[in-house]
Amino acid sequence: MLPDRTFFDRLADAAKAETMPRFRVGTSVLNKLEGGFDPVTEADRSAEASIRALIESSFPEHGILGEEHGNIGLDRELVWVIDPIDGTRAFISGLPVWGTLIGLYRNGKAVMGLMDQPFTGERFFADGEKALYRGPDGERVLATRPCHALSDAVLFTTSPHLYTGELKERFEALQEKVRLFRYGCDCYAFALLAAGHVDLVVECGLKPYDVGGLIPLIEQAGGFITDWQGGPAEMGGEIIAAGSRELHAHALEALKGRV
Amino acid sequence: MLPDRTFFDRLADAAKAETMPRFRVGTSVLNKLEGGFDPVTEADRSAEASIRALIESSFPEHGILGEEHGNIGLDRELVWVIDPIDGTRAFISGLPVWGTLIGLYRNGKAVMGLMDQPFTGERFFADGEKALYRGPDGERVLATRPCHALSDAVLFTTSPHLYTGELKERFEALQEKVRLFRYGCDCYAFALLAAGHVDLVVECGLKPYDVGGLIPLIEQAGGFITDWQGGPAEMGGEIIAAGSRELHAHALEALKGRV
Repeated sequence: MLPDRTFFDRLADAAKAETMPRFRVGTSVLNKLEGGFDPVTEADRSAEASIRALIESSFPEHGILGEEHGNIGLDRELVWVIDPIDGTRAFISGLPVWGTLIGLYRNGKAVMGLMDQPFTGERFFADGEKALYRGPDGERVLATRPCHALSDAVLFTTSPHLYTGELKERFEALQEKVRLFRYGCDCYAFALLAAGHVDLVVECGLKPYDVGGLIPLIEQAGGFITDWQGGPAEMGGEIIAAGSRELHAHALEALKGRV
Repeated sequence: MLPDRTFFDRLADAAKAETMPRFRVGTSVLNKLEGGFDPVTEADRSAEASIRALIESSFPEHGILGEEHGNIGLDRELVWVIDPIDGTRAFISGLPVWGTLIGLYRNGKAVMGLMDQPFTGERFFADGEKALYRGPDGERVLATRPCHALSDAVLFTTSPHLYTGELKERFEALQEKVRLFRYGCDCYAFALLAAGHVDLVVECGLKPYDVGGLIPLIEQAGGFITDWQGGPAEMGGEIIAAGSRELHAHALEALKGRV
């Protein structure tokens, strides 16, 4: 049995109860990887724990893939994919473009998903058929916008510095073809794409939990999201999302690089 | 006579009435500069017109320096410095990190200022002595945070692509010394600095109206904002803001480049 919107809202509310009291108040930051800067806050850990407790209580037969507390039952039919705070750098900088990501995979395919930004009060939810928005400006069904040419497209990526070597060349080959590009948004950029405000989001090195909650939002709003070879996005890696099939095809072509 | 907070609120509310109905609804975009991409929306033009009408009605003896509708009386004792939408690229992308900037200069020195982000409901105001915040998480007096070493600092800049030649080398010399850097925030980054969430904001090629409303916020929250030579920021150009005097000095030193 699939969960309903109310259950997703309970998960998002439980995460919000852990994240918001720690946002903009000098949250402690741990370095998960020695030598690297990988901020993981108490908010991250406790939000995921709260989400998992609700899932394990209501759906003990489901699997869980989480960022902070390990994985269980990844071979089960239904698996939750959780990133309690996507955009931890934004979170620790006080910038409200981070989000709580909760996806549900059925036999490896993302079928439901949620992105919540509790400071702005925006919640993006894909129920299996359509993508829905609730925010300070009201409620509506989400739809990507019809942009078909790279020369008309607005592109987001988190940071150009995340691309190195061949990936950098391929990303730049795409970036130089678009109308406007912007950096620094993490999951919020994907939500803006689902809502029809931007046309392309490109990322590299994503984990499944960085994208699992977002795939249904993009697809059920009418967009396309795959890896850079056009394959499934569910396992992360190099990801490209576009608002239309035609733009997605043009972007994939550009991402082949200058060969 | 200086205006009070109520008057600044009236200006921000008047701007909000023009910007918000046009945010995230497919705002028309004009190209102000031929060949370049300089999005100026109807929201930008009408918000500035509304602000100017209120100023001209209440303070006809004041000068006005605005982005969209020209300048009057720049040699007067009190001059308003207005950017109705700072961060037009964010605005047209649906990203709520743009802001309405309103500064007041007395004999060329920025003494009062406001930054308003109407989607998130955040208003930052410097009254001549202190910097104040009102937002969804309450009201408070703003203070920058005590960060004294570049190796501990969080740095924001709008885009690394705005720096070329010598400026690029100098910016990168600073960027490589900080703990964490992020791109893509325009005026919102300065507001986060005043609020004690980030430590450094560096920009180049600013106009007076890009920074005029922000200088009092930074200074009255305890921070320091100058050009890259340590001179006044009021006329724009290459700008550096820091949360502490010591960090500001270190950043100025780093911005001399690798010589």
